[in-house]
Amino acid sequence: MQDPIDPVKLDRLAEVAVRVGLNLQPGQDLVLTAPVSALPLVRRITAHAYKAGAGVVTPILSDDEVTLARYRHARDESFDSAAGWLYDGMAAAYDKGAARLAIAGGDPMLLANEDPDKVGRANKAMSMAYTPARERITRFATNWSIVAWPDAAWARLVSPDLSEHDAQRRLAEAIFAASRVDDGDAVARWEAHNAELTRRSSWLDAQNFSALHFTGPGTDLQVGLAEGHRWLAGATASTNGITCNPNIPTEEVFTTPDCRRVSGHVSATKPLSHQGTLIENIQVRFEEGRIVEAKATKGEAVLQKVLDTDEGARRLGEVALVPHGSPISQSGMLFYNTLFDENAASHIALGQCYATCFQGGETMPAEEVARRGGNASAIHIDWMIGSDQIDVDGITQSGERVPVMRKGEWA
Amino acid sequence: MQDPIDPVKLDRLAEVAVRVGLNLQPGQDLVLTAPVSALPLVRRITAHAYKAGAGVVTPILSDDEVTLARYRHARDESFDSAAGWLYDGMAAAYDKGAARLAIAGGDPMLLANEDPDKVGRANKAMSMAYTPARERITRFATNWSIVAWPDAAWARLVSPDLSEHDAQRRLAEAIFAASRVDDGDAVARWEAHNAELTRRSSWLDAQNFSALHFTGPGTDLQVGLAEGHRWLAGATASTNGITCNPNIPTEEVFTTPDCRRVSGHVSATKPLSHQGTLIENIQVRFEEGRIVEAKATKGEAVLQKVLDTDEGARRLGEVALVPHGSPISQSGMLFYNTLFDENAASHIALGQCYATCFQGGETMPAEEVARRGGNASAIHIDWMIGSDQIDVDGITQSGERVPVMRKGEWA
Ligand SMILES: [Zn+2]
Ligand SMILES: [Zn+2]
Ligand SMILES: [Zn+2]
Ligand SMILES: [Zn+2]
Repeated sequence: MQDPIDPVKLDRLAEVAVRVGLNLQPGQDLVLTAPVSALPLVRRITAHAYKAGAGVVTPILSDDEVTLARYRHARDESFDSAAGWLYDGMAAAYDKGAARLAIAGGDPMLLANEDPDKVGRANKAMSMAYTPARERITRFATNWSIVAWPDAAWARLVSPDLSEHDAQRRLAEAIFAASRVDDGDAVARWEAHNAELTRRSSWLDAQNFSALHFTGPGTDLQVGLAEGHRWLAGATASTNGITCNPNIPTEEVFTTPDCRRVSGHVSATKPLSHQGTLIENIQVRFEEGRIVEAKATKGEAVLQKVLDTDEGARRLGEVALVPHGSPISQSGMLFYNTLFDENAASHIALGQCYATCFQGGETMPAEEVARRGGNASAIHIDWMIGSDQIDVDGITQSGERVPVMRKGEWA
Repeated sequence: MQDPIDPVKLDRLAEVAVRVGLNLQPGQDLVLTAPVSALPLVRRITAHAYKAGAGVVTPILSDDEVTLARYRHARDESFDSAAGWLYDGMAAAYDKGAARLAIAGGDPMLLANEDPDKVGRANKAMSMAYTPARERITRFATNWSIVAWPDAAWARLVSPDLSEHDAQRRLAEAIFAASRVDDGDAVARWEAHNAELTRRSSWLDAQNFSALHFTGPGTDLQVGLAEGHRWLAGATASTNGITCNPNIPTEEVFTTPDCRRVSGHVSATKPLSHQGTLIENIQVRFEEGRIVEAKATKGEAVLQKVLDTDEGARRLGEVALVPHGSPISQSGMLFYNTLFDENAASHIALGQCYATCFQGGETMPAEEVARRGGNASAIHIDWMIGSDQIDVDGITQSGERVPVMRKGEWA
């Protein structure tokens, strides 16, 4: 039987992860996290990292069954602790110049049937212990990236009607296509893609729109953009001077809304997978930036709970433009994974904004971010509002309309 | 086809690792290192650790192919670096009370064909980076243990004439038997075994012999014992007050010789596997503690190189008694792994002594260890001198002879 995962494309993905995703420099160490199922990709990435001149490559492998053993057998107190020593060590590695690659792809539903209280406490303990490492990643203290592995459990979730072999093959091919490694010179394709993304973000920056206006079936939404906002896309320069591609794949061009100037109504164009629950047909209405009405045909209780997380959970922290013709959108697949699903369509995100989406945001105090309308929240949840029926206009500072997208494509 | 590794015995090994090897306490975190091939054992150990009340279990998995990728592709400078951040993190975990379990069992010949200069430099860089963690382990700052996994590559080396399935089954059964998990109540068997080992070490401590005298075919060796020596065996109390079994399996009762008072000649009774080379039929002669003549029918050049490492490499740092009837000896197998081979027969070790083999050794200054005849060296290499044809006498402080072993068994 044929390997469901094409070894040539897998090797290309590894090369893209190292050369495009990380842009790994000679002498740089690499901290690599992955599910143990991704070992074939870990090995290829390790080889490409050493070919690129890596110092030491250190894979840290996690295992779904080890994770589940805790929920099966651990005493209650266990769920308030985390392996801080490991995350502190990673932060120390970044401070010494190590790059960071995450391979995504465990079972998205792994903990769907576990005690939500224990899951929440374990996530909180982990999140707190991970803060020093995460803080270095979010401020791009080093070059980092994330790529995906077509894990069998993930593949079964995405294609429940296929055999495991066919499901894994389908997910693998979708990952390869979305990551632009399905054929030809992948590194050159990424250069062209990055150039196109930069062209879009530069144009949007030059327009310096006051707001975007989304219209289409069930949607008439005005999203004010924050004062001094900046559009980001594709490659990012880390503060160690290395330009990396933090997400493989990536299609979005995104910025920070003014969380006080959002109004109108909007309908989700794809289901939202949130912590094991599928929320379908979301419809919300904004008044003065705040969601005042929200419904969904499925998972509405979970949606309401999300909106009640904190005050910022009812406001927008991100608006992102993705053309309908992009490969992930064209696949028509729901991946149950933000790395893919948020690149399938134009989207908005409830919750925390990115300070880096302001000019000079790297050093901007939190109060100044807030003064300009940057939102603050414990959550950041992207959901899709784009499709081939959505038009987007930019509203200039003098109130004129400029076509940005028509029928889901760049105008 | 039957699984070559009996799942019931494997689960018992996991339970013995947690309850006997570590004696893991409720609330203790666990740092677990293992080759990725040992994942089935890692999962069982994780389950038993959580059942025993573990806080967080963190497996750190290594992979032989990832290791080899470095030798295939890395630039030369890579071999002088190591993942210090990870080992520093482990040391920090021990300081916060975490226990430590190592699963041994990668391919012993993995690096046999790699550039010895690169292997040596990588080992040295690793050894230096690992010093803070190793120092905490050797002084028993926390409870720790080591168990073995019947890795397929290791099994092929041990049984080159069998199919991989049969070889792995043979190695697995040998590990289970040696680890006393092959039948019955393994924890109770370990209690009895520890009691027997303690009975032997207590008797030897009470004798306070001045020397041991080994006689048999090709052997007439007098080994002076250091002033204030102490016999160790089986369970050990770590300084955090937890009694652990650092080696699973363990058969030896061992102490520190006076490295100035060793004389006579001795013949090895088993081949010595040293870094990919098999050294056969070693014969050496000691004068005033120092090896003045050494030969071997195979691998003699490697042996001579070992002896030339430093001044202490020609002197003894350990003498250990193992009865011929012990399970590892009875298996008749050469394991190419010190954890097993040193427990197959009475042995001596060239090189560094254990300070813990002195009464009060935990806090004894290095000069005092040296003054009492404790040896110092960068190496510690055990080799087998016991068999069913060897007698051992103890020489008391007043010069009398006391039978210790006859025909390889306790007298
Ligand atoms: Zn986004
Ligand atoms: Zn987002
Ligand atoms: Zn020994
Ligand atoms: Zn030894």
